[in-house]
Amino acid sequence: MGGNEIVMGGHGFYNAHSQLQHSAISYGLPFLQRALTEVALPTSDRPFVVADYGSSEGRNSMEVMAIVVREVRRRAPATFPISIVHVDQPANDFSSLFMLLQSSPASYLCETQGVFAYATGGTFYGRLFPDGQVSLGWSSIAIHWLSRLPATDPDHIASGHSPPHIFARFSEQAREDWECFLTHRAHELRTGGRLVVVGGSADAQGTYGGEPLYDVANRILQQLVRDGYLRAQEYARMMVPTYHRTPEEFAEPLQQGTLRGRLLLEAQSQVTMPDPLWEQFGKAGDIQSFASKQTAWLRAWSEPSLFRHLDADRSPDNSSRIIEEFYGRVRLAIVQDPLAARCNWKISILLIAKP
Amino acid sequence: MGGNEIVMGGHGFYNAHSQLQHSAISYGLPFLQRALTEVALPTSDRPFVVADYGSSEGRNSMEVMAIVVREVRRRAPATFPISIVHVDQPANDFSSLFMLLQSSPASYLCETQGVFAYATGGTFYGRLFPDGQVSLGWSSIAIHWLSRLPATDPDHIASGHSPPHIFARFSEQAREDWECFLTHRAHELRTGGRLVVVGGSADAQGTYGGEPLYDVANRILQQLVRDGYLRAQEYARMMVPTYHRTPEEFAEPLQQGTLRGRLLLEAQSQVTMPDPLWEQFGKAGDIQSFASKQTAWLRAWSEPSLFRHLDADRSPDNSSRIIEEFYGRVRLAIVQDPLAARCNWKISILLIAKP
Repeated sequence: MGGNEIVMGGHGFYNAHSQLQHSAISYGLPFLQRALTEVALPTSDRPFVVADYGSSEGRNSMEVMAIVVREVRRRAPATFPISIVHVDQPANDFSSLFMLLQSSPASYLCETQGVFAYATGGTFYGRLFPDGQVSLGWSSIAIHWLSRLPATDPDHIASGHSPPHIFARFSEQAREDWECFLTHRAHELRTGGRLVVVGGSADAQGTYGGEPLYDVANRILQQLVRDGYLRAQEYARMMVPTYHRTPEEFAEPLQQGTLRGRLLLEAQSQVTMPDPLWEQFGKAGDIQSFASKQTAWLRAWSEPSLFRHLDADRSPDNSSRIIEEFYGRVRLAIVQDPLAARCNWKISILLIAKP
Repeated sequence: MGGNEIVMGGHGFYNAHSQLQHSAISYGLPFLQRALTEVALPTSDRPFVVADYGSSEGRNSMEVMAIVVREVRRRAPATFPISIVHVDQPANDFSSLFMLLQSSPASYLCETQGVFAYATGGTFYGRLFPDGQVSLGWSSIAIHWLSRLPATDPDHIASGHSPPHIFARFSEQAREDWECFLTHRAHELRTGGRLVVVGGSADAQGTYGGEPLYDVANRILQQLVRDGYLRAQEYARMMVPTYHRTPEEFAEPLQQGTLRGRLLLEAQSQVTMPDPLWEQFGKAGDIQSFASKQTAWLRAWSEPSLFRHLDADRSPDNSSRIIEEFYGRVRLAIVQDPLAARCNWKISILLIAKP
């Protein structure tokens, strides 16, 4: 999560509906494995500190951190301490995260000693650790959230669908934010440390793969204005503060910009992901289930950023009626035309070293 | 907070109604000041790690941690990093804590650089840090919560009012828990580190100072059984898992027991606190306000531990009707006889060093 005050739906809802984010992680694992082979282990009695930049409620961190623990244990004695710090917005549901850590069989705290879990509630566009404390940084499907909304589009909720003058504002904000993120990590990482970033991305033509679902959502919001559910000014404010960087935009500050020499881009790749829910649908043929899951997934990350723009005079009941109407219609639209909700998100994966 | 699954009322309720805990802290400050003068500062680029064992929602930690930051800054360069880790149960409301840290003018993050705040959701009856990482430990009004409920009393909700055979079970659990707490801290503290504990306490006769309010609460619960609100088996299960140790019980493991030589009891004191709400009442003479505040204070810490014992077949509405009835009657009882709710809690303060 970025620096604005949007957080994912709490009380485990995000945990339950973040399969795509989970699937994206698998593409980051080869770089993570390489990072874990290369990373310098701290000497004396310092712990190996891992930072999870944008953990949300933690479900998608369990498997990754279990790998980290296993690989560090392979290289160092079993008593070597590992401290894992999950970073997200102050309002993030950290209790769900800690309860999962204590109770889930998938928890990286299971069947191991000397591993300690912490959280910090702050933005990853700021400093989160003292200088040179972090051995390994990990950030998955979080860096596309900008620190703020630099502009709104009267006709769409997503920067990737905006005309050039609006799109440029998002590009510029994304450039600043990425440089800011890297600058803080350059301080926090130890010499010999590694950072792996798995981030929502776009190709050179600007295609990011989520266009179908964003268009469905946008069309239905416009319907809700016409049908009197939403006010025009509310819709006008609705814009998701995300931006999908191209591989060139990810590389720029590391290769030509201010981070050059301070951080080293060791490897970079981009993949187009199959839609895991669409694949399930293809196997099971259950259109209702596909529509429900795709809608719940959309809701888990979009509800806070869209509906915080409702006017302040709305009662909680009234707001919740609008929100239910919106996701109900999205679900119906997907049932009527499932192909229109099929996404093939692009992600960039980066392996970065602190020399 | 201890090791059982009870947490203080969330969403800032505990923050708003914990004046007594806040007042208790002031008695711990002289020992804290001494600890901050004596504690060894880490060398090289290691941060000064502070552990706040039992932070709840953080309000009562702000002032203490601001003092810690100021004193460490006095002894070390302004860039010397300080990491403060707030410890409480996984279900604790950590978002309230992080939001307070970001937004409150009393936050120790204000107007200072190089201070980092974290949380961990776990029990302080377990290991929370790698060996030798903590320079300063602080625990205030938390250690009287036991790791589990060792027994119940059919006639009372508080161990201090129980017959000897039940009271002995609590003494024994308290002895085990305190030794367990200290053993883990002995590992976590750095050589030269300090631990300050401010804990609910009793004198040699077993007087702990909260008797009046506990008796009011117990009498009203018995009324609710007679009046058909509560079932007898629900009341029978209700017992607050706390124990107020005598100064001798606090000292025992450090002076004669297993911790002798590993931790050093540098100083110890006991005080009987005036009731801050009673003092306000004395000045303002507002009996309604006194009753409301005393009831809200009681509720903030007692609601979870008493009413989690309601039968599972109760609907949320039904449970909440019982709870409202209980605190409503407590409030009324205090209005009718305010003196019966006047408490003079005893607290023990300990300054412990790791040699």
